[in-house]
Amino acid sequence: MTAFSDADDRSLSVLLGTATERALRDAAVEPANIDSVHVGNMAAEAFNKRSGLANSLVGELGMVGAAAHRVENTSASGASAFRAAVDAVRNGPHDAALAVGGEKMSAVDTSTSTEVISRITHDKEYAQGITLPSFGGLAADRYMGSYDATREDLARVAVKNHANAASNEYAQFRKRIDVDDVVDSPPVAEPLRLYDCCPTGDGAAAVVITVAGGPEASGDRADVSVAACESATGTHAVADRADPLKIESVRKAGERAYGTAGFAPESIDVACIHDAFTILEWLEMEELGLVPNGEAWTLTRDGRTEVDGDMPVNPGGGLKARGHPLGATGLSQVVELVWQLRGDVPDKRAVSDPRRGLAVNVAGFGNNSVCTLLEVSP
Amino acid sequence: MTAFSDADDRSLSVLLGTATERALRDAAVEPANIDSVHVGNMAAEAFNKRSGLANSLVGELGMVGAAAHRVENTSASGASAFRAAVDAVRNGPHDAALAVGGEKMSAVDTSTSTEVISRITHDKEYAQGITLPSFGGLAADRYMGSYDATREDLARVAVKNHANAASNEYAQFRKRIDVDDVVDSPPVAEPLRLYDCCPTGDGAAAVVITVAGGPEASGDRADVSVAACESATGTHAVADRADPLKIESVRKAGERAYGTAGFAPESIDVACIHDAFTILEWLEMEELGLVPNGEAWTLTRDGRTEVDGDMPVNPGGGLKARGHPLGATGLSQVVELVWQLRGDVPDKRAVSDPRRGLAVNVAGFGNNSVCTLLEVSP
Repeated sequence: MTAFSDADDRSLSVLLGTATERALRDAAVEPANIDSVHVGNMAAEAFNKRSGLANSLVGELGMVGAAAHRVENTSASGASAFRAAVDAVRNGPHDAALAVGGEKMSAVDTSTSTEVISRITHDKEYAQGITLPSFGGLAADRYMGSYDATREDLARVAVKNHANAASNEYAQFRKRIDVDDVVDSPPVAEPLRLYDCCPTGDGAAAVVITVAGGPEASGDRADVSVAACESATGTHAVADRADPLKIESVRKAGERAYGTAGFAPESIDVACIHDAFTILEWLEMEELGLVPNGEAWTLTRDGRTEVDGDMPVNPGGGLKARGHPLGATGLSQVVELVWQLRGDVPDKRAVSDPRRGLAVNVAGFGNNSVCTLLEVSP
Repeated sequence: MTAFSDADDRSLSVLLGTATERALRDAAVEPANIDSVHVGNMAAEAFNKRSGLANSLVGELGMVGAAAHRVENTSASGASAFRAAVDAVRNGPHDAALAVGGEKMSAVDTSTSTEVISRITHDKEYAQGITLPSFGGLAADRYMGSYDATREDLARVAVKNHANAASNEYAQFRKRIDVDDVVDSPPVAEPLRLYDCCPTGDGAAAVVITVAGGPEASGDRADVSVAACESATGTHAVADRADPLKIESVRKAGERAYGTAGFAPESIDVACIHDAFTILEWLEMEELGLVPNGEAWTLTRDGRTEVDGDMPVNPGGGLKARGHPLGATGLSQVVELVWQLRGDVPDKRAVSDPRRGLAVNVAGFGNNSVCTLLEVSP
């Protein structure tokens, strides 16, 4: 991946190309051997006036001839591209696929990017002026009213993710913060404050997927396998959901992934959760069965989601601190998991001997989720 | 599919929903049984200020829970969505997938849509002011200079496709034209005239794909199988190609499709060719091996590509006369082939007892092509 930042001087194409070249080098796969290319991107038309990203990319990277297309699933475009690449390789017809995702949001001003992102909500909710942070604020308020979690507990999610990002050279925010920094930051959608919310930014991430026993399966480092990559939609309108603290798409995607992989949530050693807002880290952990409903906050309070805890979450900093360049995010989660499973990260954010990892990438406020399970090959 | 038109009053979502409901009814599949949704669309952000089309569609159509994402491959977005749906169903993990594509180009004025479409060319060619029709004009000029084809022969492609569309209630242009109409129409990019060029427009088309022996395999009508759906990229810049009359992406996609299906071009009974410009019908027929290089024009002159000829091409009217609402086009070709293979079209445009059909959908000026082969199940 590229280092995420609030504004990268390089064009979207260069970002995508840089991430791809790094993935190919890591996998020791020649560009000409990539059969199928899947480019995750949410809004290059709105941000960069670009269509047909996949077509220009294959030319620039020496992959002419490969099948190629772009995958768009709003903020889960990266994981959806990964899923498409997995589908292309699993049981044929392709031997090696590339999933690469990126976004260059800095090309437009904040009011434009906010408008583009807000449009993904349901028309009836958009018409009411509700934005994604509004939904996050409402959910956070409900959660703290339903359980014994405090405003300070919620802040600890951001504090932990910033601490993890401090030793991640690919993270957008490498500044450590404390609970007071979060609680005293400017209000965005009460009770959420600025430091409860992920930033916009620029970046790209890429993954090469090959059939088992492919060219990457050599050397002395651990091989990482895709145990499952499953997707599910939920209701588009948040108001149509029976319980505002449940995100059905995350639950379903997780259940499907566990079913495909054949293992239980209890066996997950490390998780990358779509924490666009701090409250989402809790809601998604609960929907994924990593913790019973209403108890995620206790893990945070007790430090159990920290890198050296028993359920480490977002060791790379999450969306909150690594950053959230939309189409890149889902793939940056997969990259982080691969690094963790290989033990290829600085000690300060290295989970202890993980064998199985989970990533969840979420479109909109839970409209559409993709859950990926990776494991060290036996 | 919906009837294509230059301006449809319905929103893009309604167009996509209408096509989907028709496909589901035809397939006798309940919405809740669709596992995976693939929405083909080129530029809803630029034309309609919409992202996340897949997420709203599943809600409106009773498919909440299904996996879903949008596929973008410029003017081949429809066929790329079809390929993604085929990949999702072939050898699992899904049993029934929906590919639906559409575009509502009338939402913006012609200068805006022209700008959006022109941006898909390579930067270095875009900077020179070259547009897709320019490439078509250059290729047409070269073709007629290389072979004995005349301007009138080229016009016969449009005349034939308009004649086919006249009996297609889903076509945008149902007016018969003659050679003089084409030759005397306003110049667009010499030698191409207005009637050599496909229109912009609105429309949607959808296909339900199930595993073999799925719920649709009942009743007394012919079952149609996907024998192959393969994709290939070519150089992005047209200037990087050794021969301007060769479209490598079409050739490769065709070769791969024939290889997967295990049959030869000679066995194709009907073809839907991406005739965004008349000249492309010839170039693509040649690249697909339906006729030797430099000879496609003779088939047109001799009437062999007409519905009652021995190599019927574009019996539904092609892009030229059925219309070309970008994301819908590739799927409208598949729909036409299915209807032809079932014998489910009016006699005037019914090919005689076809068993195998080919569709090719092309992004940009040959940047990225998708070739689909369908056959009546044995």
